[in-house]
Amino acid sequence: METSGPPSDLSLNNATVRSLLVGFLRDEAQKAGFVRGVIGLSGGVDSALTAYLAAEALGKENVLGVMMPYRTSSPESLSDARLVVDALGIRAETVDITPMVDAWRGDSKTDDRVRAGNVMARLRMIVLYDISARDSALVLGTSNKTESLLGYGTIFGDMACAINPLGDLYKTQVWQLADFIGVPKPLREKKPSADLWQGQTDEGELGFTYHDVDRLLYCMIDERRDGKELAAMGFDENFIRRVQTMIQRNQFKRRPPLIAKVSHRTVNVDFRYARDWGI
Amino acid sequence: METSGPPSDLSLNNATVRSLLVGFLRDEAQKAGFVRGVIGLSGGVDSALTAYLAAEALGKENVLGVMMPYRTSSPESLSDARLVVDALGIRAETVDITPMVDAWRGDSKTDDRVRAGNVMARLRMIVLYDISARDSALVLGTSNKTESLLGYGTIFGDMACAINPLGDLYKTQVWQLADFIGVPKPLREKKPSADLWQGQTDEGELGFTYHDVDRLLYCMIDERRDGKELAAMGFDENFIRRVQTMIQRNQFKRRPPLIAKVSHRTVNVDFRYARDWGI
Repeated sequence: METSGPPSDLSLNNATVRSLLVGFLRDEAQKAGFVRGVIGLSGGVDSALTAYLAAEALGKENVLGVMMPYRTSSPESLSDARLVVDALGIRAETVDITPMVDAWRGDSKTDDRVRAGNVMARLRMIVLYDISARDSALVLGTSNKTESLLGYGTIFGDMACAINPLGDLYKTQVWQLADFIGVPKPLREKKPSADLWQGQTDEGELGFTYHDVDRLLYCMIDERRDGKELAAMGFDENFIRRVQTMIQRNQFKRRPPLIAKVSHRTVNVDFRYARDWGI
Repeated sequence: METSGPPSDLSLNNATVRSLLVGFLRDEAQKAGFVRGVIGLSGGVDSALTAYLAAEALGKENVLGVMMPYRTSSPESLSDARLVVDALGIRAETVDITPMVDAWRGDSKTDDRVRAGNVMARLRMIVLYDISARDSALVLGTSNKTESLLGYGTIFGDMACAINPLGDLYKTQVWQLADFIGVPKPLREKKPSADLWQGQTDEGELGFTYHDVDRLLYCMIDERRDGKELAAMGFDENFIRRVQTMIQRNQFKRRPPLIAKVSHRTVNVDFRYARDWGI
């Protein structure tokens, strides 16, 4: 498979998308009754881009970036997050989640790093939502479309937010827009990682590159091509099947909890409104 | 307003609903690929009823009740939860969340009890989801329709679950079914409380009784009556308005995060499938 940069299908009209996403953040914050936004700044490109868009939409004085290192987090994650804070002049705060993780570990007595990683992602959600209540600030999400479709994220953890400007952009599109908007180069060029344990990289864990999977996802989801067509286009059949399975098996992470239907009107079945219903 | 017991509209065909909910738990667990279920047992009637239904659906050996007291939790909450464990013969485990709450408090330096209550609800979610991963057990939700409509719960906390058998039953219907199924009397007769601080009761905090609000919600939501009709039926106009506002303002708690639409197929806009899609 060709891996040298995204094909033309994945290329964005950067100026249009930027203004669309800035407008989205401004409108949705206003509709929800919020002036301020809060973002977990991981040192990665997704949260950095979200911060750039939010600063443009809400004003730098209304954006708070929260850095939430754990004991084993890479120091580079923190220094890269600070690059964003300094470049934008947004407010910043650091909350070390180590004491909370240690308190959990004391009880669970596990050294399973995947379980610990999910706990860390959810503890960060707790910190962000608590700050959201403290500051009357909307929690802005940073999950991109690649992660969302593959289920490569923690439900009720990093996938939890009020509104998400990046959820319809593939990772390679996040890179494009981040480049266009001027997110600092170290964040755009480093290997993506959840930094939940040392040496973790997204692509190492997933077993494929974002360039490859984004091309496949675009053809599969956006162009609605089936397995046969995808194979005819040159995508490896095992790769196609593996990605299809990931998308289907993780559907639960993208849906609200399932409620047993008893009455004539059941929440999320036949009682359904937009978030801003009634405004 | 009449408050002596639920009116006939809210009365359930208990045997039918019981078998419907047991079938729901059995089918949905199987579709999700799970044999076991895990439930946070608060000592209240909702989680107790969920445990009774789950034991019938999955077998008592496949149900784990997790008690998660905090330092200030009422000892009665724990002893009432144990009544359920003993009556059903399900597996049980106790996780004291005090060290995790204290670790959070050390950083946040707040004594705001509502914020602390939300943190506790979310820490319990973390414990349940971690046990879910450890034991391959589905997290069973316990939020009822009254709480869900009023938004009287913590998003990504007690409202987080995989599947929820009670989400379409009003609180007074939970009481009816709990009575029919034989949930121990102390749990059915005590004042409902999230037990997040001493002396907290749901009805004290809400400012109305479940009997009153369930009658109103049934007429408003299930029968789709508007404000004029509800007033003509004798409901107080301020009460009607207050409840309407609560339902609308908390819609965000019942919906997945809002994603900015950029592409032809956006998650939860035009990329929408049931949780068990592809099975």
